[in-house]
Amino acid sequence: MLQLYFFPMACSLSSRIALMEADIEAQYHLAHIWTKRIVDDGSDFRDLSPMGAVPVLVLENGDRLTESAAVLQYIADLKPQAGLAPRFGDPDRYRLQEWLSFIGAEIHKAFLFPTFWYKDEGSLAKPRARIAQTLSVPATHLASREFLVGNGFTVADAHLTWALLLLRPAGIDIAQWPSLSTYLERMQARPAVKAAIVTEMALRRAMAA
Amino acid sequence: MLQLYFFPMACSLSSRIALMEADIEAQYHLAHIWTKRIVDDGSDFRDLSPMGAVPVLVLENGDRLTESAAVLQYIADLKPQAGLAPRFGDPDRYRLQEWLSFIGAEIHKAFLFPTFWYKDEGSLAKPRARIAQTLSVPATHLASREFLVGNGFTVADAHLTWALLLLRPAGIDIAQWPSLSTYLERMQARPAVKAAIVTEMALRRAMAA
Repeated sequence: MLQLYFFPMACSLSSRIALMEADIEAQYHLAHIWTKRIVDDGSDFRDLSPMGAVPVLVLENGDRLTESAAVLQYIADLKPQAGLAPRFGDPDRYRLQEWLSFIGAEIHKAFLFPTFWYKDEGSLAKPRARIAQTLSVPATHLASREFLVGNGFTVADAHLTWALLLLRPAGIDIAQWPSLSTYLERMQARPAVKAAIVTEMALRRAMAA
Repeated sequence: MLQLYFFPMACSLSSRIALMEADIEAQYHLAHIWTKRIVDDGSDFRDLSPMGAVPVLVLENGDRLTESAAVLQYIADLKPQAGLAPRFGDPDRYRLQEWLSFIGAEIHKAFLFPTFWYKDEGSLAKPRARIAQTLSVPATHLASREFLVGNGFTVADAHLTWALLLLRPAGIDIAQWPSLSTYLERMQARPAVKAAIVTEMALRRAMAA
């Protein structure tokens, strides 16, 4: 069975959403990204992930795959009939890769990452000054579309849903982009997305208690 | 014919390397990423690229593709016999996506981008403190391998070659990771890689003159 190493509400949430949308069974292991310990057994998470970063997907053959863009496409391709990624050969497959890269680099690594990890004002001034321009790109795209790619939910939507959820605790009110806030509501109304978020929010609250 | 919008020695260099390694003809247009003007005709680059970022690949049908991870895979798939990406269905395709994401997010967006765009000390302290850990990941991987993925040159190598070239002007001496510096020498010895770099270095020097 697939094993997903995750931290609640970190970017591994996208992978959980993808697994649940595809109805693929998996074992979930909480990897503490701050202490770098795997909660199951206290072992060092860096033995699995050199940067101590989630997600890590352990495949059926024991190989480990990291980086959301790769993990999400792997999950989507396990069950093509779920439609979580355009099939290879469809030009929209490159659109999916374009969005996964944009979300991973421009929203996550350029803004959410320094916000949650660096925290000091010096680190945050420039990323904060840039985020509105960044968010205008998906906001414009989604003004006339229900999903990021094609006419159905893909792993790009799983990833953007996670990123938009994190913007509020990062101090950005997405209500200023109505197309993004209605998109997030639509995505959160999907049963699998909702269930994934409820599970991880409960874990996050339990850890804070 | 394909049209590549690039800025000399910016991350679009990877796409030029890929096109030249695959021997795919393309028209190259210099897009000034600082002034956001296309040098050919002075038009606004943001009409093509909402973030004013390179690369932008204009496809034969006029569609535009952005983000190196997507553009590089598109170029590789145009000419599968060049071997620039494992074919779809090969598990190594996900390794390629993993490296493209790692290079794009962890090396480029988390380190090179703030170094060249933000410049102030406040923005740079944390990225600088983190880059050695980041670079130890490809350094360890390449200690026993000639290429990032499989047994041949792929677009992941094109992208890492670009990133390693930029580390020196970003103040990082990669000699401290012998596997990375010998890898970069090997890559630069490839005729197509060398030709791509020579072309863009000449343009860069001409712009500075």
